[in-house]
Formats: sequence, structure tokens, C-alpha cells
Amino acid sequence: MVDSIFTRIIKGELPCYKIYEDQLTIAFLDLHPIQPGHTLVVPKKQIDQLWDLSDEDYLHLMGVTKKIALRLRQEFKVSRVGVQVIGIHVPHAHIQLIPFNTVEEFTTEQDMDAPVDADSLSELAKRVALN
Amino acid sequence: MVDSIFTRIIKGELPCYKIYEDQLTIAFLDLHPIQPGHTLVVPKKQIDQLWDLSDEDYLHLMGVTKKIALRLRQEFKVSRVGVQVIGIHVPHAHIQLIPFNTVEEFTTEQDMDAPVDADSLSELAKRVALN
Repeated sequence: MVDSIFTRIIKGELPCYKIYEDQLTIAFLDLHPIQPGHTLVVPKKQIDQLWDLSDEDYLHLMGVTKKIALRLRQEFKVSRVGVQVIGIHVPHAHIQLIPFNTVEEFTTEQDMDAPVDADSLSELAKRVALN
Repeated sequence: MVDSIFTRIIKGELPCYKIYEDQLTIAFLDLHPIQPGHTLVVPKKQIDQLWDLSDEDYLHLMGVTKKIALRLRQEFKVSRVGVQVIGIHVPHAHIQLIPFNTVEEFTTEQDMDAPVDADSLSELAKRVALN
């Protein structure tokens, strides 16, 4: 199996704006955030779909996701943190957490061609990091 | 607190196309499915946001969600089951599971004015019911 872009991040071959890491999980800011604090929560095991993780690994990932969502809600002073799991673009399961106030903010289309705002992402990652 | 539309369903005051129920959880088909099998997984406790459930109740809900997602993937013969949690319209936490093959199928806008196809929903609910 070819390493996914997330596995390369986990191996340290690619950089990321990390906000959380444990033995089974990594979470980092999306480079093209729909809203500030848009985060990807990723199991270290390279598996295409969330549902094919073992129950144990899946529940661990979901537990971490809750901790991060609560942190994002508090740090970004938003009313909600939404969830999206689509998973077409990267064949490595990931949960998107999106801080938002209005439906329009949540459903904003992601602009993958937008320039990466490295300074802002770096500052945000430091601010919201959980460990 | 006024009963949410989901609490009224749980109490049996409103009908639903139920596919799963346990002491803490109910899951039923969305009346205006984005794709066939579009399902709402709902904690019986009326709480606005998923993240404010106790860890125990939250992890139970997520465990049920995985079982239902696997079932939907198999029954609808789709390549994926996506997740969305937005939660603006009903102040009672709910996880949307959406069977799909292409991104376009997942991101189809929900038509809340579409007529409810009761026969088809009823048949589908019987087919995919987990208990």
C-alpha cells in the first residue's frame, strides 16, 4: 500500500499544523479551512474508511474527536462545531471538525486553490493544541 | 424544556421510519433523504449538541452509529457512508448518515419541500432495520 498523504504527515515526512497526537491518533489544521480552526482528526492506522477500524480504535478516535471539538468550540468562541466525514479525496479515514455559527459558514465550499496562510495556521495550532 | 420533534418521535407521539432503537438511542430514516438510506441517529436524551453528552452516552451513540453505517453500506451497496453533524434546525443532537458513491451524491442539497415518499421509506426501514 502506498503511503497516504496523512501517513506521510504521521511519519514526519510532511509538515502539519498539529494540535493533538497520541499513539493511535493525530489531529491537525486543514490547510484550506472552511472556517478558522477547521481540523482533521485522523487514525494513525492507514485505513480508507472509518467504519472499517476495529471497534476499539474507532471509539478511541471518536473520544479524541469529542475532546478536540469541545476545545475548538471554546477557543474559537463559536456556537457549534460540526462534523463531516466524506473521505473521497484521501484514501485514509479522517473526521473533519468545523467550528461555525451559521449554516452558511458550515456549508462554505472549500477552496483547495487558496494560498496556504502559514503564519495564521501556525499561530492557531499553537493556540488550540491539546498536548 | 419544550419537547423537540425527536423527543416526540421517541415518545411515540409522532411516527418515524425506525431502523434501530435501544435504551439510549433511536435511529430512523430522514423524511427528505439526500440519498436512499439517509438516516438520523439520535440520543434519547434531549441535548442540543453531541459534544455535551456524557462521555459514556456519546461513545454509546458513536458505537451504534458505526453498526448502522456498516449496515447501510451493505444494504444499499454503496462504496461509502458519509457523516454530517450540523444541528442548526432541530435543537436535539443528531448524526446524519448518508450512503453515497460520488461526492455529488453526498453534497446534494436537501429538499425539505419534497413530498414524503411514505411507501418507499416504509419498505426501506423494514429492509435495513437492525432490531
